[in-house]
Amino acid sequence: MKFCPDCAAPVSLQVPADDTRPRHVCTACGTIHYQNPKMVVGSIPVWMDDGEVKILLCKRAIEPRHGYWTLPAGFMENKETTRQAAERETTEEAGATIQLHELFSVINVPHVHQVHLFYRASLLNKDYQAGVESLAVDLFSEAQIPWDEIAFTTVSHTLRAFFQDFASLKNGGHFQLHEHEVKPMLQTPL
Amino acid sequence: MKFCPDCAAPVSLQVPADDTRPRHVCTACGTIHYQNPKMVVGSIPVWMDDGEVKILLCKRAIEPRHGYWTLPAGFMENKETTRQAAERETTEEAGATIQLHELFSVINVPHVHQVHLFYRASLLNKDYQAGVESLAVDLFSEAQIPWDEIAFTTVSHTLRAFFQDFASLKNGGHFQLHEHEVKPMLQTPL
Repeated sequence: MKFCPDCAAPVSLQVPADDTRPRHVCTACGTIHYQNPKMVVGSIPVWMDDGEVKILLCKRAIEPRHGYWTLPAGFMENKETTRQAAERETTEEAGATIQLHELFSVINVPHVHQVHLFYRASLLNKDYQAGVESLAVDLFSEAQIPWDEIAFTTVSHTLRAFFQDFASLKNGGHFQLHEHEVKPMLQTPL
Repeated sequence: MKFCPDCAAPVSLQVPADDTRPRHVCTACGTIHYQNPKMVVGSIPVWMDDGEVKILLCKRAIEPRHGYWTLPAGFMENKETTRQAAERETTEEAGATIQLHELFSVINVPHVHQVHLFYRASLLNKDYQAGVESLAVDLFSEAQIPWDEIAFTTVSHTLRAFFQDFASLKNGGHFQLHEHEVKPMLQTPL
């Protein structure tokens, strides 16, 4: 941010009175422009295929991570709830009709100022189809998941936690809320 | 938003190609300036007093809701995690030392573009003190909670859910994740 969105004067980075962090403050009107993390919200659409659990993934048609697979998810919009965001993104990216269940994962990605939320969901039929942001949409069993082609760490972590919890069900386990933090990738050592 | 934060030219509200919602788009450089919900994160600091559960509340020294009581909470900052935000706000507003436990409530407030998260926490000692944004900080049993003077619906909902879950513990119940949506207050009928 270089200019004030309210009055177009230059902003400067300074710590306002009663604050402890540098903020973008307008040099003319004095407005403080706070910047805060964004939420990315999605679903884990589940289809039971002859007793085998399968998950609906989307192949990304957009950057970042064009061509990689992801759970349907995207930036939450103003005026909607987290559940509405999860359903909207699943419709937009996968053309899928789902029933949402509990919140399953809350994954912080502080180095990019994001928090990712994924809800468990039941896929209600197989009439899914790729939206404009997807190249393809398909169902994958645990053995079929293209682990090396998953777009984001938040998605691979959520998928692994899902299959782990699902496997525990037959021994009396249950789905839990999974909290996790993704750290920046380390540089390759020289 | 009236002017582009990148180049100071006027922005106009328009639906970009491949989008479905009006966005603030710069009339000169074309940058799309998205606006998304913000997260408010806090804690439920618990103190056990001779077997009775008490919660630490802060009396607000700032608007909105000056003079009303709240759980320690505030806007999540860039570069931090939700847990770090909960701990920071508890330190800043209540001078309290806590140990964080599980995420307890996720409350959507879509009409103000916010999602509120509260974590259960143990207050580790009674050396708390009001920060600059608080007039007072005090412990309240369920019977002592000033229900008519609670600052925000998200806080009263979280407190009621907490006491309900806590009461269930002696019958084999447990703390659950509580999801809720706050609707705008209806106008008083004429």
